Amino acid sequence: MNDAIRYPAALLAEACQSRLVAADALPEDAAETVRALMHASCLGTDSHGVRLIGYYVDMLNNGGVNKRPLRRFEQTAPATGRLDADYGLAHASSYRAMNEAVALARHAGIGAVTVHHSTHYGAGGAYALAAAEQGFVSLVLSNSDPAVALAGGRAPFHGTNPIAMGAPVRNRQPWLLDMATSSIPFNRVKLYRSLGLPLPPEVALNEEGHPTLDAMQARFLQPLGGMAYGHKGAALAGMVTILSAILAGADPDPVMISTAEAQKGPKPQNVGHIMVAFDPARFIGQEAFEAEMERYLDVLRNSPPAEADVPVCAPGDKEWEEASKRAELGIPVDPDTAQFLGL
Amino acid sequence: MNDAIRYPAALLAEACQSRLVAADALPEDAAETVRALMHASCLGTDSHGVRLIGYYVDMLNNGGVNKRPLRRFEQTAPATGRLDADYGLAHASSYRAMNEAVALARHAGIGAVTVHHSTHYGAGGAYALAAAEQGFVSLVLSNSDPAVALAGGRAPFHGTNPIAMGAPVRNRQPWLLDMATSSIPFNRVKLYRSLGLPLPPEVALNEEGHPTLDAMQARFLQPLGGMAYGHKGAALAGMVTILSAILAGADPDPVMISTAEAQKGPKPQNVGHIMVAFDPARFIGQEAFEAEMERYLDVLRNSPPAEADVPVCAPGDKEWEEASKRAELGIPVDPDTAQFLGL
Repeated sequence: MNDAIRYPAALLAEACQSRLVAADALPEDAAETVRALMHASCLGTDSHGVRLIGYYVDMLNNGGVNKRPLRRFEQTAPATGRLDADYGLAHASSYRAMNEAVALARHAGIGAVTVHHSTHYGAGGAYALAAAEQGFVSLVLSNSDPAVALAGGRAPFHGTNPIAMGAPVRNRQPWLLDMATSSIPFNRVKLYRSLGLPLPPEVALNEEGHPTLDAMQARFLQPLGGMAYGHKGAALAGMVTILSAILAGADPDPVMISTAEAQKGPKPQNVGHIMVAFDPARFIGQEAFEAEMERYLDVLRNSPPAEADVPVCAPGDKEWEEASKRAELGIPVDPDTAQFLGL
Repeated sequence: MNDAIRYPAALLAEACQSRLVAADALPEDAAETVRALMHASCLGTDSHGVRLIGYYVDMLNNGGVNKRPLRRFEQTAPATGRLDADYGLAHASSYRAMNEAVALARHAGIGAVTVHHSTHYGAGGAYALAAAEQGFVSLVLSNSDPAVALAGGRAPFHGTNPIAMGAPVRNRQPWLLDMATSSIPFNRVKLYRSLGLPLPPEVALNEEGHPTLDAMQARFLQPLGGMAYGHKGAALAGMVTILSAILAGADPDPVMISTAEAQKGPKPQNVGHIMVAFDPARFIGQEAFEAEMERYLDVLRNSPPAEADVPVCAPGDKEWEEASKRAELGIPVDPDTAQFLGL
């Protein structure tokens, strides 16, 4: 980010909390939203960090988010449960659902909790990490509003439907994945528009469903895999839709109202999530699992790179490195967001 | 397949069973192997169909597969279990593990069973389908020997680590996904070699870890996503390794002996799998789930295609269409395999 001034995390967290509470969010819900935003901002995922504060404030103000949700959790079997999030701030719903999944997994070995009547939950890695920090392997999926074409399609169909996963590692920060099932997010298209630069090949489509390098002509995204292998990215997006939305009883992506519409209100989206926690103690064993993860990652990091000066890395490596840097130097915030936060 | 003669499924199944039993496989293990091979051959996935019979016979003869396995299943918690496959034919181990996962899910809402000391299990979709046919949503993962580079790597690291999933659909065959996390399998490289054709871009790397279009120079594969987004394919491969091998206590891909080595024997691979079954009745409800799947797929198939004469489709659509065709016309078998089967 050019023109970004760096701020300490604690200061940013306080400012975000104030803005959410000023928009009449429950303080405890606001705190979970701030926790998730700070997760993203600390690890360098600025697209899902404090930059989104204005979006959530708009949704609180306009009805895209319920300020006084009555969340209802129902355990449906020894290892499963459903959370009706009542359209509350989705970060609070998601941390809650993952906590329930972990509690189920402690008893049953694995726990799976779906969430329906939910809203935009930000970075799924936040909830995956929450479980990994307690020693669990976690899988976190959410659907989202249509933005990505099917392979061979000429309309947005699936959302960017991210896959997040965490796994504890001995002597290290967790292995942490958080990826969209499109090649790039639509925000990246907007960035290229503002920079006046051509898009990378095979990431976006024009109105007719044909690939375009012109960011101004780009209307929606291609699934991961591009023209030749986009059926794989589309299939992964479908996997996310089925597990997070159809199983949950939320709106499948193609019929979900858009994020922009939800921001204006008064109708919220009905987003679905699923949180799965696996207890390694019920498989290979907790210590053995974490030790084997460490060995696997040692082998990975010592694997020869194609370019001598660019070592290979595992999901999360760059994020944890950036987190160390930001802990020292502060978190860069763009001028608009800084102004919104009164900094 | 050029020069392929078509045979009825029952005839092929009988011939495969005979060859496996002649190689001293237990008849019940052989029957499960044949079931999985016929799944692939009937649905058109010839790479994992009866063509592999010689490979499994070699492994039985040379020690890559244990002819008299003592499989030990241990339930470890209300929703989890582990199967020590004792290096038996992996199709029998995998159907067994999925059956156990379904049994756990009937009681606990979800069931997860890992398999260790396993061997090459063929097409994961076979086991995903077995659960979907009983009304469960299934996830089936297996690691495999190193064949795919990391993003920015110059050596094979992960296996092609497929992701398979099934979901029941009202009035229809199940939604069925079975995909490698590389863009193409290495068999495709061999096919291009034999055809003397250049490879598609960004699917394979040469000895130095640089992309090549020359099939003769190709040494290993690129992860799904190619040069720019291969970190996503590599991350998905890592997800598969962690859940199917590290959690199970099998060999992680980078230290697994090769498929070719296992074929020569006497040492088997120690492959890992994981089978997860979700009971829709414990989430949105069985009928509601299957009906919503049907609606989702109706919307999908009516989504406008980029090319008017190429409709979009869902995972499994082409396979079920091919299955109908093959049920009528028979299954094409290449001359070498036909000869091996004594046809």
